[in-house]
Amino acid sequence: MSVIQLDEYGPWTVEPSPRRETDLQALQARLYADFADFVGRSDGYAFFNRFDNMLGIANGIDVAEYERFQERVRNQYPITVSVGVGEGETPVRAVEVASQQLQDAGSAQDPDRREVLSAGDTSDSAGHVTVGHFDIVDVTESFTDTEHAATAGLTIQQSMIALKQRLLSEHDSIAQFVGGDNMIAVCPQLSEDAFGDVVDHVNEQTGIEFQVGIGSGPTAHSAGDRAKEALEHCRETGTRVHEATTIQQQATDD
Amino acid sequence: MSVIQLDEYGPWTVEPSPRRETDLQALQARLYADFADFVGRSDGYAFFNRFDNMLGIANGIDVAEYERFQERVRNQYPITVSVGVGEGETPVRAVEVASQQLQDAGSAQDPDRREVLSAGDTSDSAGHVTVGHFDIVDVTESFTDTEHAATAGLTIQQSMIALKQRLLSEHDSIAQFVGGDNMIAVCPQLSEDAFGDVVDHVNEQTGIEFQVGIGSGPTAHSAGDRAKEALEHCRETGTRVHEATTIQQQATDD
Amino acid sequence: MSVIQLDEYGPWTVEPSPRRETDLQALQARLYADFADFVGRSDGYAFFNRFDNMLGIANGIDVAEYERFQERVRNQYPITVSVGVGEGETPVRAVEVASQQLQDAGSAQDPDRREVLSAGDTSDSAGHVTVGHFDIVDVTESFTDTEHAATAGLTIQQSMIALKQRLLSEHDSIAQFVGGDNMIAVCPQLSEDAFGDVVDHVNEQTGIEFQVGIGSGPTAHSAGDRAKEALEHCRETGTRVHEATTIQQQATDD
Amino acid sequence: MSVIQLDEYGPWTVEPSPRRETDLQALQARLYADFADFVGRSDGYAFFNRFDNMLGIANGIDVAEYERFQERVRNQYPITVSVGVGEGETPVRAVEVASQQLQDAGSAQDPDRREVLSAGDTSDSAGHVTVGHFDIVDVTESFTDTEHAATAGLTIQQSMIALKQRLLSEHDSIAQFVGGDNMIAVCPQLSEDAFGDVVDHVNEQTGIEFQVGIGSGPTAHSAGDRAKEALEHCRETGTRVHEATTIQQQATDD
Repeated sequence: MSVIQLDEYGPWTVEPSPRRETDLQALQARLYADFADFVGRSDGYAFFNRFDNMLGIANGIDVAEYERFQERVRNQYPITVSVGVGEGETPVRAVEVASQQLQDAGSAQDPDRREVLSAGDTSDSAGHVTVGHFDIVDVTESFTDTEHAATAGLTIQQSMIALKQRLLSEHDSIAQFVGGDNMIAVCPQLSEDAFGDVVDHVNEQTGIEFQVGIGSGPTAHSAGDRAKEALEHCRETGTRVHEATTIQQQATDD
Repeated sequence: MSVIQLDEYGPWTVEPSPRRETDLQALQARLYADFADFVGRSDGYAFFNRFDNMLGIANGIDVAEYERFQERVRNQYPITVSVGVGEGETPVRAVEVASQQLQDAGSAQDPDRREVLSAGDTSDSAGHVTVGHFDIVDVTESFTDTEHAATAGLTIQQSMIALKQRLLSEHDSIAQFVGGDNMIAVCPQLSEDAFGDVVDHVNEQTGIEFQVGIGSGPTAHSAGDRAKEALEHCRETGTRVHEATTIQQQATDD
Repeated sequence: MSVIQLDEYGPWTVEPSPRRETDLQALQARLYADFADFVGRSDGYAFFNRFDNMLGIANGIDVAEYERFQERVRNQYPITVSVGVGEGETPVRAVEVASQQLQDAGSAQDPDRREVLSAGDTSDSAGHVTVGHFDIVDVTESFTDTEHAATAGLTIQQSMIALKQRLLSEHDSIAQFVGGDNMIAVCPQLSEDAFGDVVDHVNEQTGIEFQVGIGSGPTAHSAGDRAKEALEHCRETGTRVHEATTIQQQATDD
Repeated sequence: MSVIQLDEYGPWTVEPSPRRETDLQALQARLYADFADFVGRSDGYAFFNRFDNMLGIANGIDVAEYERFQERVRNQYPITVSVGVGEGETPVRAVEVASQQLQDAGSAQDPDRREVLSAGDTSDSAGHVTVGHFDIVDVTESFTDTEHAATAGLTIQQSMIALKQRLLSEHDSIAQFVGGDNMIAVCPQLSEDAFGDVVDHVNEQTGIEFQVGIGSGPTAHSAGDRAKEALEHCRETGTRVHEATTIQQQATDD
C-alpha cells in the first residue's frame, strides 16, 4: 500500500489569500485521476480517501516509478507530493507502515518536508490481494429515481461509512466509496461468511442491504476484476455474497 | 441548483464486461473536474456528491450553457449526461425540484433517457447565497501526523456525515466534503447561533470539534470566498463560528 | 483576437535543470485543451500556434473572463499566462494589436512581467467572422494508408505552410493546422474566387490539392460550423471551393 | 518507434454532423498529453505529428503495455486507437515498419479496423538513441518581443519544416516541433559535423540560425536530457553545435 500526501497543501490553498474553491476541487480531482491512471498501469487500485491523502494498492510498483510520478506532479501541477510505501500482513497494517514513513519524515505542513519518498521493508514474497466489491441492492429503483439527490446521497453515505467502519474494525480491511453506490474493500483473506456478517451487520444498523462480490489474485486489478464478475453474479441470481473462485470452479465443472 | 446525472452509467461500466476500476475512477474524477471548472467560470460551486450524480450551485448559468456542457461531454467522453435545474426557497428544496426534473424524464438507467436538459420554473429575483465553510480544529496535529491514513480518514468522515446530516435535517442545507478536513454547506440565511448549534451538536455526537466561517453574497463563489476569509479569522483567533460581515464591519470601524 | 503567452516559460523549462520533455509536452497540450474549452464555451476558436503563444478568436469574451482564466491557470498549473486582446479590420491586424499589448508590457522572459492582461480599444460593433476550413482531397487514400507516418506528415506540413503563407501575405488571414489534414483560416470577407486562387496557388507550388468550405457568422463557431458543412458538400460533390450561404440559398430555393 | 492512429477519426468528427472544433482540439490535445505521459513513464518521447497519427519513441514498452493504453483510451475517450510498433536501423526505417503494421491491417477509415495492435520483429539488442534538440538563436529578442504572434509563428514554422526536411532526407531522422522555437530529432548516430551541416543548410535556405545540443543514451529520455544540457551549453557559450559527451569529458578533465 502507498500513501500519497500533498505537501503543505492546506497553507497553499489560502496563500496569499483563499484560492477559488472550484479550482481546488478540479485540481484535486485531476491529481487523483492521474494517480488512478498511474497505479492502474501496474494493475493496482487507487482510493481518493481525503484527496490530500490518497491511497494506492500496487504490489508491483517500485520506488523509481513513484519517483517518476513525483517528478511528473512537480512538472505539471502547482504543488508537490510525498509518498510513503508500506507492506503488512493486513491492508490496515500496510497503511500504518506507509503512514509511519511519512510521519517520521516530518509534519504534513512542515515547509521543509517536501517530496519525501520513503518505503518500509518490503519482502520478495509475491503479493496476494483479496478485494470485495459491494453495492446496494436495487439502488436505482430505491433511491436514484425516487429520492432527491441530496437525501439519496446522505443515506447512501451513512451506510457506506457503517460498512467501512465494520470492515476496518473487525477485519483489518481498507474500504473506499468509489462512486454511485459502490464500495471497494481491500482485505486479508476472509471467508464468504465473514463478508456475510459484514453485510448483515450493516443491514441491521442502517436498513440498507448490500451485496458483495469477492475476488482474489496476484494484483488488485485481477482480484478486483474477479470481484466485479462475482458481483454481476449476485445481481443476476439475487445472491448476497459471492466469491469468484466458486464461479471458476463451476466453469471447470461444466 | 443543478443535478448532473450520468446516463445509463451503471450498465455501461459492466458492458460488455466490467471495465477496469482505475479507468472508471479517473473518468469520474476528470468529469467532475470539468464540471467544477464549468460552474466555477460563472462563480458557482460544484459538489461531487456520488460522482454519477453531481450537484452544481450556479445562479447565473442559463440553459444554453448547460446544453453546451452536455455537448462537450458527448464530444470528449465515452458517456453522456442529463441535467436538471431547480430553484427553491432553500437549497434542499432547489435540489428536490432539480431531481424531480430528471425523474419526470425517466429512470437514470432507461436506455431511452439520454441527455435530458430540464429546468423548473426560475424567477428573475437575484440569487442570494449563504455558505458555511467548516474544518476541524487542529486536524494536522490531531490526525494527519499522528493517526494512520485509514483511521484518520474514517474518523473524519464520520464527523462529516454527522455534520451533513444535521445541516440537512435541521437547516435545509446541502453540505459536501471537499477534501482534507473541509466541508462546505450551502444554506438558507442562518444566524451565527444556528451554525453554533450545529457545531456543538456534532462535537457532542462524535467528539470532533469543527470551526466554521460564514459568508453571504450574490454568487456561491462570493459567499464562499467570504466564508473562507471568516474561517481564516477563526483559525487565527480561536473563535469557533464567525460570519464574514462582522469582519467587514470591523474593517470599517478601524 | 487574443494572444495567450506563457510567462517566462523558456527559463522555467530548464530551471533548475532541464525538465523531462514528455512532462512539458503534456503540460502544454493540456493547457491548450483548457484554453480551447474556454473559448469554445463562448463560441470561439483556439489555435495552438507555438503552444507557448496561443491564439484565440472570441468576439464575446470580456476582460473579466480572461482574468478568470488566468486565475484558473495560476491555481492549477505550475506556470502563469499573460493575455493580450486586440481588435482590427482584419485578423492579422487584430493579432498585431493583441501582440502589441503584450510587448508594451515587457519581454516574454522578463521575470517582472507576469499575468499581464491588456486589451486594445474595442468597438461595440457586432463582430462578423469568416472561416475557411481546408482539407486535402483524398488524404487517406493518398497518404495515410500508403506512405509511412513521417513522410506523410512532412508532405502534409509543407503544403499547410504554403497555404498558411499565402493566406497571410495575400489575404490578411490567420491559418492554423488543426490536426489530420485540416487547416482552419480566420479571414476578412473574401470571395469564393479568392479562396480558389489560394487553393490553386498551393496546388501549383506543392502538388497537393486542397478543398475548402467557407462560412460566415457572428462567432467563430457559427462561421466555422457553416464552413465545415460547406466542406462536407465539397467532399460529396467534388467541388473544390464552396461557400455555406450558397447551400442555404439552395435549401431556400427548393 | 510506435505509431498511434485514431480509428475512423475523420468520419467520427462529422458524425452525425460536424462536431464543435474546440471540442475536437481539446480531445486531440488531451489524448496526446496522455500518450506523452504514457511513454514518459518508460523514459520515451512522444511526437504529436498530425495528432490523429502520433509517434512514440520507447525502447522498453512491451505489447502488453500498449494494450493497456488502448484499454484506457477506450474507457475514457469516445474514440479508440490502433498501434503499430516497428524497429529499424534508423528512426525512419522504424517508422516505416510501424506504419506498415497498421496499413497491413486495413485502412485508417475502415469501420472494421479497430484497436489493432501489431508489432514487427523486435530484436533483443539494447536500444541506443541519439537525440538532437534544436532551438533558434535569440528567438525571444528576434521574434517574440518584436514581431506579432502570427508572423513570428509562420517564420518559425517555415524554418522548422526546412530543418525537418533536411534531417529526414539526408539523415534518416525523425524531427518534431515541440513548442516555442524547439525542435527535437531522433537520429541514427551522427557526427557533430553532420548536425553542423544541417544547421548551416537551414540558415542558408531560410536565414534562421539554429543551435543544437546532441545527446545519446539507452532511452529517448536519457539521450534527450543530455541533448538539453548540451543545448544549455550552446546558449551559454555561443557554440552552435554541441554534443553532450564532450561536456562530460571536460567535466572529467577538470
